[in-house]
Formats: sequence, C-alpha cells, structure tokens
Amino acid sequence: MMHRAEQRCRLPGWRDRIMSADEAAALIQDGMTVGMSGFTRAGEAKDVPLALARRAESDPLKINLMTGASLGNDIDKRLTETHVLARRMPFQVDATLRRAINAGEVMFIDQHLSETVELLRNKQLGKLDVAIIEASAITEDGGIVPTSSVGNSASFAILADKVIIELNLATPEAMIGLHDIYIPQMRPRRQPIPVTAPDTRIGTHYIPIAPEKIAAIVLTEGKDSPSTVQPPSADTQRIANHLIRFFEGEVEAGRLTSSLLPLQAGIGTVANAVMNGLIEGPFEDLTMYSEVLQDSTFDLLDSGKMTFASGSSITLSEACGQRVWNDLERYKERIVLRPQEMSNHPGIVRRLGIIAINTALEADIYGNVNSTHVNGTHMMNGIGGSGDFARNGQLSIFVTSSTAKRGDLSSFVPFVSHVDHNEHDVDILVSEHGLADLRGLAPRERAVEIIENCADPYYRPALRTYFEDACRRGGHTPHCLEKALSWHQAAIEHGSMRSVAL
Amino acid sequence: MMHRAEQRCRLPGWRDRIMSADEAAALIQDGMTVGMSGFTRAGEAKDVPLALARRAESDPLKINLMTGASLGNDIDKRLTETHVLARRMPFQVDATLRRAINAGEVMFIDQHLSETVELLRNKQLGKLDVAIIEASAITEDGGIVPTSSVGNSASFAILADKVIIELNLATPEAMIGLHDIYIPQMRPRRQPIPVTAPDTRIGTHYIPIAPEKIAAIVLTEGKDSPSTVQPPSADTQRIANHLIRFFEGEVEAGRLTSSLLPLQAGIGTVANAVMNGLIEGPFEDLTMYSEVLQDSTFDLLDSGKMTFASGSSITLSEACGQRVWNDLERYKERIVLRPQEMSNHPGIVRRLGIIAINTALEADIYGNVNSTHVNGTHMMNGIGGSGDFARNGQLSIFVTSSTAKRGDLSSFVPFVSHVDHNEHDVDILVSEHGLADLRGLAPRERAVEIIENCADPYYRPALRTYFEDACRRGGHTPHCLEKALSWHQAAIEHGSMRSVAL
Repeated sequence: MMHRAEQRCRLPGWRDRIMSADEAAALIQDGMTVGMSGFTRAGEAKDVPLALARRAESDPLKINLMTGASLGNDIDKRLTETHVLARRMPFQVDATLRRAINAGEVMFIDQHLSETVELLRNKQLGKLDVAIIEASAITEDGGIVPTSSVGNSASFAILADKVIIELNLATPEAMIGLHDIYIPQMRPRRQPIPVTAPDTRIGTHYIPIAPEKIAAIVLTEGKDSPSTVQPPSADTQRIANHLIRFFEGEVEAGRLTSSLLPLQAGIGTVANAVMNGLIEGPFEDLTMYSEVLQDSTFDLLDSGKMTFASGSSITLSEACGQRVWNDLERYKERIVLRPQEMSNHPGIVRRLGIIAINTALEADIYGNVNSTHVNGTHMMNGIGGSGDFARNGQLSIFVTSSTAKRGDLSSFVPFVSHVDHNEHDVDILVSEHGLADLRGLAPRERAVEIIENCADPYYRPALRTYFEDACRRGGHTPHCLEKALSWHQAAIEHGSMRSVAL
Repeated sequence: MMHRAEQRCRLPGWRDRIMSADEAAALIQDGMTVGMSGFTRAGEAKDVPLALARRAESDPLKINLMTGASLGNDIDKRLTETHVLARRMPFQVDATLRRAINAGEVMFIDQHLSETVELLRNKQLGKLDVAIIEASAITEDGGIVPTSSVGNSASFAILADKVIIELNLATPEAMIGLHDIYIPQMRPRRQPIPVTAPDTRIGTHYIPIAPEKIAAIVLTEGKDSPSTVQPPSADTQRIANHLIRFFEGEVEAGRLTSSLLPLQAGIGTVANAVMNGLIEGPFEDLTMYSEVLQDSTFDLLDSGKMTFASGSSITLSEACGQRVWNDLERYKERIVLRPQEMSNHPGIVRRLGIIAINTALEADIYGNVNSTHVNGTHMMNGIGGSGDFARNGQLSIFVTSSTAKRGDLSSFVPFVSHVDHNEHDVDILVSEHGLADLRGLAPRERAVEIIENCADPYYRPALRTYFEDACRRGGHTPHCLEKALSWHQAAIEHGSMRSVAL
C-alpha cells in the first residue's frame, strides 16, 4: 500500500503522518465539530468515521457532524447506532438517522446546500475542529485532490483546525484535473464569481491548505455505495414525456433554443427518468449545471446530446460506475466537479438561467411544495439544493407521481403540511397525468391548472369541492382552514386519504 | 410649461409628441399589457393612468398592469374602481385594490420583486404593449432620466412596443445623475453583474431606448404621495433596541465589524424604527443596499453614521421630502437608485452579504414566516423584496410586534397560515419582548427560543402546551395537525385568539 501511496502523495514527509483509521479517529474529541467529505453517497470519508463509531461503543462521545450532503457505506447509520451524533447538517438520507432525527435524539439542521460553508466562513456555526476528507492524491504543497465529490470539502479543509486525509488508493488516478476548486473572497469586498457557462473553470484542481494542518493520512481502498436510483417506470416515463413536450413547446414559442438552458436535476428516480427522456428528445448540445451527475448524465454525454456537465459529485449505479471510472480520462474534458457552494450558487443559477427539475413530496392546489416533511412533521431527507435552484433558475419545475402508497395518499392536497418552496418559486408542476404551467397565474387560476392537469382523477372531485367552498369564503388564496389539513389527519389516522375523497 | 419642458427635453422633434394625458391614455387598448413606473409610492406615472380611469368610466376596458411595486396618488384605487385592472403584478398596497384581489375580481400575481422583468425578458409573461414612465428629463438620444424611483421602468421601456413618457416638471433637475441603469445581458452568455459594493456604478444615468418608440410625451407636475411610515412607538423602539444589542454582540464576537454589512430594511414602521436606532448606536461607516430609501436613510446620512445608500426608490414624509429634494445635489454623491432587478438581485445580495431586516405578519414556533396572508387567505400587500433579501443575505432578520389588535391576535402561532419565508431563510426573529437567534438550531430548539424570547407572555403557556403535546407525537418538526390552525380559526370566528390561550 505504501508503494502505491507514493504514486499519489507528493507532500514531503507524508510518511510520518500515515496512521491507521483507529489512530486518526482518536484525534476527535467529545464535543468537537467535524466536517466530512461526501455528497450524495459519493466521496465520503469512509474508514475514519467507521473507526469513530467502533471507538464510541466503548468510549462514548458526541460530535456535531457536517458533510456535503448524504453519505454512503452506512456511515450515518453506524454513527447513529453508536450515539456519536449530537447535531447533523445539512442533509441525510439514512433510515436509522432519520428515525433518530424524528425522535428528537439527533438535532438535524436542514439547510440550503449552498449555504453551509458560507455560514461557517462567517462564524455563524461556530468553529470547525476537524475535517476528514477523502482524497485521490496530495500535491507537493499539501493540496488535496478530492475523489468523486467536492461537496463542502474545500471549505471544511480550509476552515478546520486539523485535517485528516483518507487517501483512497482505489480511486482512478485520472481524477486529477476533474475538480475546479474556487473559494469566494471574504466580505465586504468579494468579487463576482466568474462562472459564465457550465464549462467555465475558475479555480485549482486541488484544495489549497496549509500542509502543517494535515494531522493524519489514512490509506484506504473503500468504494462509494452505488446509486439507489431505479430505472424509469411507466409513470415516471409519462412524467418525462409531459416535460419533453413542454420543452418542445417552449422552443416553438421562442422562449428556449433547441439546446434549452443548463439543466439541473435533483437526485431521484423521477428526475433521472426525465433526463433519460432527453436522450430520445429533439434537443441538441444540452448542458448540465447541477449537483449530482447521475447515470443519465453519462448516457446523455455518450448519446452526443449533451456537450458538458458540471456538478458537485458523481453518483452512479454499479454498471455505470464501471463504465465511467474505467474511462474517466475520456469523460474528463466534458465534466467538472465544483464545491457545492458553486454548483448551487444563487447568483450563478440566476446568471445561467438554470432549468431546475426537482421532486416534490406533495404540492397543494396553489402550487406550494413540500419536499421534506411527511404529514408536516417527519423529516424524509432534507431540502437539499432544491431551494437554491428553484428560487433562482429561469424555470422551476417540480415533478411527482400523483399518488403514493397505491393511491392511498394524494400528492396534490388542499394545503401542504410543510412549505419548502412557496408558490413564487414553482413555475411548472408535473405528474403522470399532465403538466400545470403556472407562470403568470394568480392562485385561483393556479388551482384549476393543478387540479385538472396533475391531481389523480380519483381525488379531483374532492379537490374541486374544497376549492369551490374556499372561493365562496373569499381571499387571494382561498382556504377552509378547518379542513385544510384534514387530508393529512386522515393519512395519520387511517393510513389513507381516501375517506376525504368520498 | 413648454418653455420649462425645453430645459429638460433634448430629443429633436419632441414637441411633435407632446399630447394631453387623455390623448396618451387613448393609445391604450382593451386587453393590452401595460408596464408603469412606480415603486413604493415613488415615481409612478400619474396623469395618464388617472386619465385612463376617467376614460374607462364611459369606455370600459381591461388591462394587465405591471409596475415596480406600489403606487401612490390613489392610482390603484381609481383603476380598481373603474374596473380597468384584469391582472396586476408584482405588488400593491391599496385598500380598494386589496378588496378586489381578495374577492377574486382582480388576478394578482405576487412576485419576488427582482423577478418580474427577468420573466418578461424571457417572454414568460407575454408581450408588453405599452410602458408609461415618469421622467425628469429626456436626453437627445431619447434616453429617459427617471424620477424618484427606477423600479422596473428601464426594462419596461426597453421591452415595450410603445413608450409614453410623463415628463414631470416639478421634479428637481438635480435628478440627472442620481440613477444607475444597468440591464443584464441575454442568456446563455450573460456576464457577471459587476456591483461589488453599494456605491459601485455600472450603468448609464438614463434608460437607453430607441427614440422612435416614444409615442407620447405628457407634461405633468404631480407629486409623489408622502410616506405613511409612523414615527417609532415604545414597542418599535424596544424592537430596535434588541436588534442593536444583537449587532453589538456580533461585533464583539468578531462576526461583524463596526460598520456591519450593507443594510436592507423593508418599508414599514418597525424597520424604520430600527434604522433610526442606528443613529444613536455605536456603529460607523454604515452602508445601505436596499429597495427603498426612507426618512431614516437620510437621517443616517446626515448623522454621519452612514456613508452611502443604494436603493430603487426614495419614499419620504412631507417634511423629509422638502429637505431632500431641495438639497438633492448635496445628497446625490452618497446615494444611487438602481433598477429593482439590481437592488434586489440574489447574486449581489449574496455577494455583499446583506443584513436583511423585514417585517413579519406572523411567525410560527419553528420560525416559518408569513409576510402576506391574513389567516392564510387574505392578501395584505405582497411578498415584495423580502424573499430576495432573506434568502440570500448574510443575516436574515424578521421583526414584528408580538401581538396585534390590542392583544387579540398573537403574531407567534403554532403553525403559520401561509409561508413566505421558511425556516431555512429566517436567522433572527425579534419582537418587543426579545430576540431569538435561530442560527444553527434544529426546529425543536428554535421553538424554545421563539416561544421564550419573542411571544407575548399571555400566549406563551398555550404555545408551550402545543409544543409539548406535539413533541410527544414525534417528528423533526412536531405538530398536532388538528390544532395547528386552530388559532387562526378562532381569529376568524371570534376576532380573537384569546380563547385558545385559556
């Protein structure tokens, strides 16, 4: 292993800092705040956090853990089971951690993914004690070359007192040059961030840090967990078709060109199906300015339909992973990974005019979207980057199946039980039944579009009745407050909303 | 009048385009979309819209009306009374129009103020037929020098088929040079907007348009309506004091310097009181990057505490107006008026790290804020720019008195009846009772801060009971859905929330 490490580590004296994951984990003290690499199950530090979990079984400790976004390899699960997590931010997708969050055992701070390091840099989240960063190489100046994600790793490494590097020898050496690391200047004299297109490179290919901060180098060979995204189903294919027809209409109306605008797609099966649908669509020279480069991104690149894709991580299925990582040199000139602060930056999203495609958990008849909270109370994953893109893009699209649980739950309700994206930020809603174009419409007009185009036909009569009753009472956004949350109450009591639709 | 017009109008052949307001109003046809100047009761076109209302009494017509923000001189009132308005965007404050909106008679599209012209430019709001713009001068190339606001006037004039200019001879000639007009390039190759400080000037002092588009020049002498902002009361003074102590703490903690960061303050009595409080505070070299320059802005400039203020309009009381407009030459080097797309631009707000101070109508125990809808249904004014600033600034502060209607309504409720700003975008809440610092806190922690620091003591026991009951049921954001909106139901039924607090 040391021999292979030598190929990747140019820092003088690096051998003196090599230690085991257990030794590195011992550098972390009870009460510390730790920033770890990892974004959408890609590029997380693997061995040290698992060593920390093992240690906590006999030597209990609590930390505040920040990451880029979700982790793979059951790391959040293990850290939750061993009660290591006091606070966790800004995103997660683990079932065990989710239970602990909803039980009030772990304090979860759900943040717009572009904001975490801005808050940290401005000292609004306290001090970062340790960063644990997975690297594919270390430069002679101590610069860290990330792996399959950048996430918040760059700012974590720069702002932390100490840095633990997991040098992952199983990552392709071709990763050098994949990343573009840029950190905004400190206020008040911050300069514009000069990204003007998805392929603009503005930074370095490594994270520049003071090499004396590197407290440990741990050699690892772990793999990212494969993507859990499912192939398109009949329903997701219908959603994709509606959206592609919509894009065709926008091109005909002169509002978009045949290369559309840079695309962002949230992680998930529906968004992936939409991106897949573009392979067969009539569009050319597509680009992506997104968070996660998924299987569909590489399918689009391979099909010749997409010319360039910018993201903050690469999260792939087993099969697609083999294809991409073994041939990275060929893809590298058409992709770039940026810090999530850049991939999701509100100013860049506005400048480029992103087409943002994200998944809704539920939407109400006026187009307010809940992305996070089941029945208004129980956290699923987190808002992620959806707010960064939906607020600032040129087109903000939310997709969802019209029902869940075999029709027991309607995804279109009178009043969402939690608001992540309000009506101002939702231009287009799409379900398998159709597409509601809400641009330039007042709430009473939005309701008709949403009920008649997106809601499941089974629930439409009840939604119409609610809306008509509400309109009789008046208001810009009419409601019957005593019934507004009754659909969710039925879901809690009976596991089904069907009773309200009778 | 023609003689005085000559001083201000350099466009060759301008005399041929002079007409009366009635003649100009006749250029507007039924079904047209019209963009008018005017932002926070400042700089609106005055005579032509009132002539249009008169005409509609005998010759009914409907238009879609876009402005910068609110209008003065009862223009929205008159246009509503004469049934001219089919659709209205993006903001209003008029009682008569508000009633028509809530009755469903006028379709109101409530928008983030930075977004309207972006949508228009991208053809997402249809075509703009006519722009009616108040001007203080016309350059020899047909460039329009605005008056006390820029708002959306620049893009309206550039994008409209025809432009009607109201050349207001009562405005100070010193207005030339007050404005900085910059229009973003078309996507996909838009360049960064080079504003890096409140005092950066990046554009022209006039709106550049093709002079042949000027269909009419109407000479006017109308005045802006004076500001309706009230002087600080005991309660608003307490809110200001809490906030100033908070800023002092931030300076001590090294998170802010003694010049803070550029300030934004929403229009309204509370925000004005806070700005007033800074005159006596220990801060120096303050700057403002806001929408509206109010009385307090000029008091801060005169006190020597503020060095520069950037806005999109100037809205003043009668007395302050006399002081400022008669001495504009002296103030002009320390203020600038920009298009609202620039004053509220998400990328600039993020870059500068604005301290955003806006007024909440109500907030819930988790820090979600309702800025617009009384009891979730009835529109007050609109979201305005609060979302542009709260989402992207370094500090997002919302202020409100803890109760309304002599204590009958609590401004802090279990569940807001409408969400304009969700918990992700609300850092600090302040009432006359105290300040809740919500940064880095999970929802269950936020609830304690908000209930114990901000809510009125009369309502605290009921909020505590709700929160404790909800926590027993679990969830990241615990709620009892069947009671969540009961406070608003009580307000609707009894005009008071007092019964829920028993």
